[in-house]
Amino acid sequence: MSYQQLSERFQQLHHYRHLLSIAGWDQATMMPAKGNDARANAIAELSGLCHRISTASEVYDWLNAAEQETLTHEQQANLREIKRQLTHAQALPESLVLAQSKAGAKCEHAWRQQRIDNDWAGFAKNLKEVVQLSREEASLRAEQTGLSRYDALMDLYEPGMRSAEVDRVFGDLRQWLPDLIQQVQTQQKSQVITQPQGPFSIEQQKQLGQYAMQLLGFDFDAGRLDVSSHPFCGGVPEDVRLTTRYNTDSFAESLMGVIHETGHARYEQNLPKNWLGQPVAEARSMGIHESQSLFFEMQIARSRSFLSHLAPEISRIFGAQAAFDPENLYQLYTRVEPGLIRVDADEVTYPAHVMLRYEIEQALIEGQIEVEHIPDLWQANMQRYLGLNTAGNYKDGCMQDIHWTDGSFGYFPSYTLGAMYAAQWFHCIQQQLPQVENQIAQGDLGQISQWLNQHIWQQASFLTTPELVQQASGEALNPSYFRQHLENRYLHNLR
Amino acid sequence: MSYQQLSERFQQLHHYRHLLSIAGWDQATMMPAKGNDARANAIAELSGLCHRISTASEVYDWLNAAEQETLTHEQQANLREIKRQLTHAQALPESLVLAQSKAGAKCEHAWRQQRIDNDWAGFAKNLKEVVQLSREEASLRAEQTGLSRYDALMDLYEPGMRSAEVDRVFGDLRQWLPDLIQQVQTQQKSQVITQPQGPFSIEQQKQLGQYAMQLLGFDFDAGRLDVSSHPFCGGVPEDVRLTTRYNTDSFAESLMGVIHETGHARYEQNLPKNWLGQPVAEARSMGIHESQSLFFEMQIARSRSFLSHLAPEISRIFGAQAAFDPENLYQLYTRVEPGLIRVDADEVTYPAHVMLRYEIEQALIEGQIEVEHIPDLWQANMQRYLGLNTAGNYKDGCMQDIHWTDGSFGYFPSYTLGAMYAAQWFHCIQQQLPQVENQIAQGDLGQISQWLNQHIWQQASFLTTPELVQQASGEALNPSYFRQHLENRYLHNLR
Repeated sequence: MSYQQLSERFQQLHHYRHLLSIAGWDQATMMPAKGNDARANAIAELSGLCHRISTASEVYDWLNAAEQETLTHEQQANLREIKRQLTHAQALPESLVLAQSKAGAKCEHAWRQQRIDNDWAGFAKNLKEVVQLSREEASLRAEQTGLSRYDALMDLYEPGMRSAEVDRVFGDLRQWLPDLIQQVQTQQKSQVITQPQGPFSIEQQKQLGQYAMQLLGFDFDAGRLDVSSHPFCGGVPEDVRLTTRYNTDSFAESLMGVIHETGHARYEQNLPKNWLGQPVAEARSMGIHESQSLFFEMQIARSRSFLSHLAPEISRIFGAQAAFDPENLYQLYTRVEPGLIRVDADEVTYPAHVMLRYEIEQALIEGQIEVEHIPDLWQANMQRYLGLNTAGNYKDGCMQDIHWTDGSFGYFPSYTLGAMYAAQWFHCIQQQLPQVENQIAQGDLGQISQWLNQHIWQQASFLTTPELVQQASGEALNPSYFRQHLENRYLHNLR
Repeated sequence: MSYQQLSERFQQLHHYRHLLSIAGWDQATMMPAKGNDARANAIAELSGLCHRISTASEVYDWLNAAEQETLTHEQQANLREIKRQLTHAQALPESLVLAQSKAGAKCEHAWRQQRIDNDWAGFAKNLKEVVQLSREEASLRAEQTGLSRYDALMDLYEPGMRSAEVDRVFGDLRQWLPDLIQQVQTQQKSQVITQPQGPFSIEQQKQLGQYAMQLLGFDFDAGRLDVSSHPFCGGVPEDVRLTTRYNTDSFAESLMGVIHETGHARYEQNLPKNWLGQPVAEARSMGIHESQSLFFEMQIARSRSFLSHLAPEISRIFGAQAAFDPENLYQLYTRVEPGLIRVDADEVTYPAHVMLRYEIEQALIEGQIEVEHIPDLWQANMQRYLGLNTAGNYKDGCMQDIHWTDGSFGYFPSYTLGAMYAAQWFHCIQQQLPQVENQIAQGDLGQISQWLNQHIWQQASFLTTPELVQQASGEALNPSYFRQHLENRYLHNLR
């Protein structure tokens, strides 16, 4: 049976990717410097093998034959996801993949120093090459899928999402967000916030992070918490590895970072066990993934109820401070301040950072602008959305992110889609569980986890994203819940 | 050119084995319990691939063709080692490899509990199956190589070593070792040793271990120190991962354990960089490997000179104690006490543990005895060599080691061969560097490292073992240096 052969091939790929994933995690967390070349070569070798065995001609024969076979509903969903992955895998000639990987590595490597040096001219030269290759990639993918060029790239991260839809929700956002930011700032001016006094030892911060992970249901028998310079959630569903970084002056970032990654981790830890190894058992999309991390970080952890539960533990670990008063913590964790850096942005200004990148990268891939136009567009949009001036400050402007350096165009929308989905899930849960705030305040996340498990985690990729959203929440993606959430929390001082 | 194709295939295998090695290290040091099944499956998948691509028919065609090609001296040595590995790889049908892996896993798994329960009858049942399959393996390998059955297994760990040679050196050992043990015990009776007073925190023990590693030249940019329940030296030559375990009642075991593994690690870290990935760049044999760990542990670290250098650092880390007097430390670290357990044995009684295992496993593989004869033979030999009674105590007798549970017959001699080589190296160095004890006492291991690097590490597998020993020391393996070392240290109170 061809379906069987296909699914065995994907099981094999799953085993190889397990090793790649652990090797990648180790590279970021454990590996000493001199191990890097050998590691990179080993990873490249096995990645190459994975590409070869997933694009081998027999695989397409099996796929064609499997489409004629009688399959269960679940097998059909798996076949749909297999087909999607194979279509993406075969779209590009190996020469382009290699050229991209080389240009991306070169651009990213140089960027690390160029960013420090604010060297836009040097960076632009490499970026042009990356953009050129990404445009080729986009054209090939567009040809194969019938999508627009940008949509063909975005489809890698957000299957089924189109820029028409993104434009719709971002268009809405663009209407009210700049005003909201202004109003919140005016309102928060009168707040007097007490800053926690450090130092906060790494050991204590780790203890607090692990306490939060435990509270949020992370399974420590199936995962770990470690340190890396760029926090991420990696590993494999059976063994999820999340990382954070510590700054002894402040524990706020590591705490919220750990909680954010715990959201990703719980999704991975609760994908359907019986299907692991098959494409249908993978997380639905980057936006849905981000909806889990942001659900945990924004919907739960920055709420008044959760912080009131956490406050005593913070005092227990670091010793009592006036700053650990629950209401003070809440004001700290919901402070809105327009800034230049996306990864430091608060919940309210974050979407502005995403919108401006989306507009630029879309125009860039569609060929409407060139690399040299980026700084002016960046400056104009930062002014428009956040009232900030970045003229000449490239390193805190268009050179701040890693995404474009290696050609990951089409990814940025996932962040804000995730924030919107998260608000929609929480709205839904509030309707179904009127006691939810009380439960959070008591540190009882059982029913919330149950809801997420049933509606998101166990669904994996059995449904398409629109189907998933419809089944979980009874309607399509509706950005009004996100607006309502921000207004409730930041204007009306609720939640 | 066929040689080129062969060497590319081995380069590819090297990359895959890098990932297997890191995944194995992670499994022992980092992996949470629930990750084990997925990890085992992933490792099995890639191991299977490695076996397939190293026994594919084209490989043997390349090998035959390469033997007709004009090669450099070094390429010829590499081809010799390639041939050796391929010969070993193709000796066994896949069905036998699978049956062995299954029987070994079953026997080892059950042994963990059976050992605790002292359940010889239960263990013997599984062991019979393992022995049966190892005999089949030995017959096939013997047929292919023309060696005796036991020699064909030992050749996997000690290329070129034969039981005739082992019998020669062990025969010598058997003459004088039991007497020496008695004499040393009599002499040491009058010693009054002050025991260090714990607890010794893990953090402090780690600090001491890292200090010793640094002193012994371990490159921390190309390796790490971690914790595992069974200490080992793993990873890859570019990134050597060694492990230890800590007991807060005593730091002696972790310190000497770390130094032992550092010997393995320096060998790996200093294999010839330009040849990494090729069989000729691998360590020469398990015995030569053990000669490095035992050189560092026995020849250097348990010497009076080294301990006098280390004593101030021990006091600095743990605080001053009378027990940290250099002469007291020396007496502690050179105490001889016959015991039941091999891994706890001192330098003098250790070879007795090895000899008795060698005699039993050789007879077992050659079919001269059966599994049910093991306990009586064990009891007889323990009585003969160490004057100890193990009757009925299987768990501290013939059930104590992991080696036989998974069919690793032929490995034990490497331990004592290593101890003998180590003594031979040190003798040689003493001849060439009369100031060596002074250098050790000053913590200056530069010239010692240089000698090892030139004569052992950089030689990798370019020479056969007898050639290596001859070139390094000017003569063949000569067990009299080991005897001389033990008598000097333990009878004459030197070194």
